[in-house]
Order: sequence, then structure tokens, then C-alpha cells
Amino acid sequence: MKETENVEIMHFDQEGYLKDGAAAVEAGKRMIALADQVADEGYDALFLLGVGGTWDELMQLEYLMNKFGDKDFEAYLIHAAEWNVMGHKRMTNRSVVLTASESGTTPEVLEAVRKMKDMGVRVFAMTKPEGPIGKAVGAESCIEMASAHGSGGCELGYYLADCFGLRLLNRRGCFPKFDLFLEQTADCWKDLLDIRKRFEPKAEEIAKKYALAPYTMFIGSGALWGETILFAMCILEEMQWKRVRYVSSADFFHGTLELVEEGVPVVLFKGEDECRALDNRVEAFLTRGVTGDDDIVIIDTAEYAIPGLDDDFRVIVSPWILSSMVTDRLSAYYETVTKHNLNYRRYYHQFDY
Amino acid sequence: MKETENVEIMHFDQEGYLKDGAAAVEAGKRMIALADQVADEGYDALFLLGVGGTWDELMQLEYLMNKFGDKDFEAYLIHAAEWNVMGHKRMTNRSVVLTASESGTTPEVLEAVRKMKDMGVRVFAMTKPEGPIGKAVGAESCIEMASAHGSGGCELGYYLADCFGLRLLNRRGCFPKFDLFLEQTADCWKDLLDIRKRFEPKAEEIAKKYALAPYTMFIGSGALWGETILFAMCILEEMQWKRVRYVSSADFFHGTLELVEEGVPVVLFKGEDECRALDNRVEAFLTRGVTGDDDIVIIDTAEYAIPGLDDDFRVIVSPWILSSMVTDRLSAYYETVTKHNLNYRRYYHQFDY
Repeated sequence: MKETENVEIMHFDQEGYLKDGAAAVEAGKRMIALADQVADEGYDALFLLGVGGTWDELMQLEYLMNKFGDKDFEAYLIHAAEWNVMGHKRMTNRSVVLTASESGTTPEVLEAVRKMKDMGVRVFAMTKPEGPIGKAVGAESCIEMASAHGSGGCELGYYLADCFGLRLLNRRGCFPKFDLFLEQTADCWKDLLDIRKRFEPKAEEIAKKYALAPYTMFIGSGALWGETILFAMCILEEMQWKRVRYVSSADFFHGTLELVEEGVPVVLFKGEDECRALDNRVEAFLTRGVTGDDDIVIIDTAEYAIPGLDDDFRVIVSPWILSSMVTDRLSAYYETVTKHNLNYRRYYHQFDY
Repeated sequence: MKETENVEIMHFDQEGYLKDGAAAVEAGKRMIALADQVADEGYDALFLLGVGGTWDELMQLEYLMNKFGDKDFEAYLIHAAEWNVMGHKRMTNRSVVLTASESGTTPEVLEAVRKMKDMGVRVFAMTKPEGPIGKAVGAESCIEMASAHGSGGCELGYYLADCFGLRLLNRRGCFPKFDLFLEQTADCWKDLLDIRKRFEPKAEEIAKKYALAPYTMFIGSGALWGETILFAMCILEEMQWKRVRYVSSADFFHGTLELVEEGVPVVLFKGEDECRALDNRVEAFLTRGVTGDDDIVIIDTAEYAIPGLDDDFRVIVSPWILSSMVTDRLSAYYETVTKHNLNYRRYYHQFDY
């Protein structure tokens, strides 16, 4: 028996999560089949379409597509609201679009999807088939996201999107270890439970110390940059009404560093890709005594193992790990400290605008 | 005599500025000659290389290159710190790089430029020839930025960069009105003086009302988005140590809107391109009574004329106008209210990190 087996995770249905994980693996097979269909039919470019949180979520895949893709492979992350007014000069009726919407109703995405379908573009959506976006793309192009229970993190959606994108690369002769990746990650959900259990006391500690701070800084890079934005903007701004500053490790030194002072919590998310060198530079700056040690939090995905995983796949799972820890666990603990219900909004969905 | 002719601009050398403008037009001719040289030699892609403020500044050109460029024209805005660790799969020895550095010493840019030169990439720099970056690219590839007097805005640099980029497009058969653009903007410096004079009382009013606010939101989009980041990050964060939140009009509705409340100044920069529709949506939200009218500031470049200018060029000059107004004038007035010298830094250039 693993030592963490009986550890509780606050407000979290562990069994339900494992079921969601198993369902994600099944849904992943559909994603792979869709990627195969696209590879068979041919395509000129892949567009990842999102708005707000879905844009943030798809950013990790854009990063991976550029990292593992060949020189001629084109992947573009596009923002639905911007695309609706600007379009994109590389999109043609031979293009492929992947999008997502948990509610199934996101207006900007719905508008974009309808226009894209009119252009003859193939659009696949991670959403429920019965919602407006699901109906717009059609049931055969619709993959339901597996999050019936358990997690407030994005790792299940990351898994699905990555199955699609990495398979597309694999079919071009890139990312040759695709089958090994599938095999080694199929059972990662129990590892992500273990990671949650290990992180649980740290999440509680961070929330108790910093959740009431008037202004908090979040720093990330590379494959973690999208998740950094998502946690700061979609969780802390939208769901907690917290004043935050998110900045990339690359940009931190060009302005934002001047805001570091006693009493400003600075949270650095360290990743496992080329940009870790930039994270290390931020860490060296923060720990040289410019502010109190007590104001610095470093969350390093490299400290959280997924046993048996090939080193080459760490960059892929690092956002899954971070999302499990922060977008899921840390947000839950923020809520207990701020007493601000994560579901409450001032404006969003409260009226039309 | 124009009615504004004798109006003063605080801490601003009007004659010096007109000289800088005339010098920029001369330097612009060198930019055009370099673009012609590149067009004659051929190239596969244009990279705009910056870090911090220079990255922000080059963003408007990336926007224009995508707007006016043909489908096969490739322009990429790259961040020096990121490129140094990640590279870019589309860069080859047939690529062309445009960069800038006012100090001439920016370490991330210097490192990138040296590596690019080793790769055989053509690199042009808007910088002083005697600085390390100037020496790395060579005097023949170096264009001195014309800002000896006068302006703290970026419009002279924008002019130079745009001369290069738009000429490159023109040589491909895009942007056919290039000569008219040059002709109509050669004398815009006196118009940008007039715009400053008109904006001067507004800059003073905004600074007096909001410069001491603990947290301020800045919203922009399209061709103004880079300037929005620059003003928020490089001026207010770096030079004024102010807590700010900059967000695009597209992203505003996905989290950040929840932070709008009584006492939070929200400054919307309205532009003149396709994304103006997104700005309008933000404006409609802000002015529907969600917060006090007194907390909302709208700065609309469309209200500031450059007489005789073709409508098609407004999108190009809108960042010049905004930079003249905010990065130059508003920052000067912030300083008078905060009493925080714009040249003072806690950390930047204070020690190595």
C-alpha cells in the first residue's frame, strides 16, 4: 500500500477523479482517431482557438507543437475575439481548428466556429455535443471533456488536446515516441492524485499566508506560461477578485521586478523545458535578499515525480502537474481563506455586455 | 499662425523635437535603403527582436506586417531572452532580423545578436554604432535612433522601424502606397507637437486624479497593444513602481473585468484598426454604470488628427500618437504628482543578476 493512499484531499472525490482519468484515456483515443483522419485527409495548418481560459489552456499545446514539430509544420494559437475581427491570413479551407468550451456556449468561440465552418474549415471541439458549440461543429467532431467529477484542474483537457496535437506530429514523422507516451501516461491519474496529496499541506500553507495579500506576483515560462496566466487570471482574478500580476520569467526583468518589495508575495512556477534557465535567473534574483524570504514561493514541477515516465515527456506533463497543484488545489485553499466562493461573479454571465 | 503655436509643453524642447523628427526622416531613408538591399538579396523571413520595451515597441510593426503582408510573408516578433534558450525553427541564414537598443548594451539582445551573426543571419539594429550591439552588427547595419532632444515617446523609433518593414512589404507588391505614406508623414512631427499641446491639460488632469491610485488598469488592442504594455510595464512599473494591470480588449472579459470597482481607475486606449470593435465593447461595459464615471478614462487616438493624412495610414500612426500622449506626456505628469523620478530604479542596472 502506498503511504499516501489514505490521505484525504479537501473537497475532492478521488474515486471520481480516477474514473474521469480513465474516461479521458478513452476520449483520448477518439482524439487520436480524429488526428489520424486529418493526417489522412491532409491539412495546411493547425489553429488552436480559445478565449480566456481556453486560450491559456491551448498555449501549452502551441508550445509543444513548435518544440516537437518540423520546420514546415504550422501551428497558431488564436484568440476567438481577435480572430472574429481580424481573421488570420494563413487560414484556408484546408486548415484544421481545435477548440474547447466547458460551458459549450462561449459566445466568441461560437461566433468563430460558425464562421470557420462557413469557410469550409474542419473544426474539432472539446465540448458537450448538445451545446451550441457542439451542435455547430457536429457530433462527429465533438469530444466530450472528461471532468464529471473531481478536478478543478485542466490536466484532463491538456491530455485530450495533447493526444490530438502530438498524434498529428507523430503522423508527420515528428515525436516518434508517441505510443510510448500514451502507454506511460495512461495511468498517470493516480500519480496526479499522489502529487495532490503531497502538495496539499503546501497549498494550505500558501493560501493561509498569501490569499489575503492585496497584490501578488506570479511568474512562469515555456510550457507553464499558459497555466500561469490561467491560474492568475481565470482563478484569482475571475473567481477570487484578487489583484495579481502575472509576468513571464523572460519579461520579469524588464519592469515588473521593480514592484518586488517586502510584503509582496512572489510565486515562481519553475518548469522543465529550455525556459527553466530563465526561471533560474528569476529565482537567483529573488533569493539574493531583495525581499523577505517569507514573501517568496517556488513551485517546481521537477520535484513531483510521475514514476516510470520517460524524461522526454516531462515537458508535456509539467503543465498537468502544475494545474493539478494550483488551478485545482491552491484555488480550493484560497477559497477557504478568502471565504470568497469560486463560483461567484460580479459581472461575468450576470448580464449581457 | 496656428492657435497652439505658443503653447508650452512641460519639460519639453519643442525645437529639439522638430530637429529629431527631421533627423528621423533622414535615418528613415537609410532604413529604406537597407530594406531595398534585403529585397534585392532575398530573404525567407523577418524577425523582430526585442526584450522588454523594445519587444513592446516592435509589436506594432509585427501587427502591421501581418495586416499588410501577403499570405506567404513571414514576420515573427521574438523575445531575446526566450530566443537565447529556445531559438526559432523558422530562422535560417537567409533570415533578416531587426532589433533596437537605446542603451546599446541590453545583455539579452547582445547575446542574441552575436549568436545570430554566427549563424550568418543579417541583423540590423536601431542603436548607436559605438555601443556593444552596434559593434556586433557593424556600422553599416546600424541606424542611430533620432532622439537627441525632446521626446520620451517611442514615435521616432516607430517611424524608423515602420520605414524598414513597410518598404520590405512594398517591394513584395504589398502596401503600394508606400511613397505616399512617406510623403504624408515626413512632416508629422509638428502635428505630433500639436497633439501634445492639445493633450497637455488632459495629461495633467489624469495624473492628478490617478497617479497615486494603488492599482490601475490599462486596456488596449491591435496596433496599440504593444504601446499599452510599454506604458504600463516600462513606464509605470519600472519608472514609477506603480501596481498596474494591463489587459487586451479581447481578454478583458475573461477574468480581469471582475476587478473593476469603485476607486479602480480604468484607462482604455482606443485604436483605429479592426480591434476597435473590441475596444468599443469594453467601453460599453465600462460606461454602463458598473463603476463610477470618474474612474474611467478613455484615450482615443481617432480624436487626434494628423491633417492631410490618408485614412489608410491612421492604423500606422495610431501608436505614434498614443506614445506621444502617454509614454511621453502622461509619464511626465505622473512624475510631477508621484514625485518619483522617472530615472530612479530599485534594482535595474543597480547590480548584476
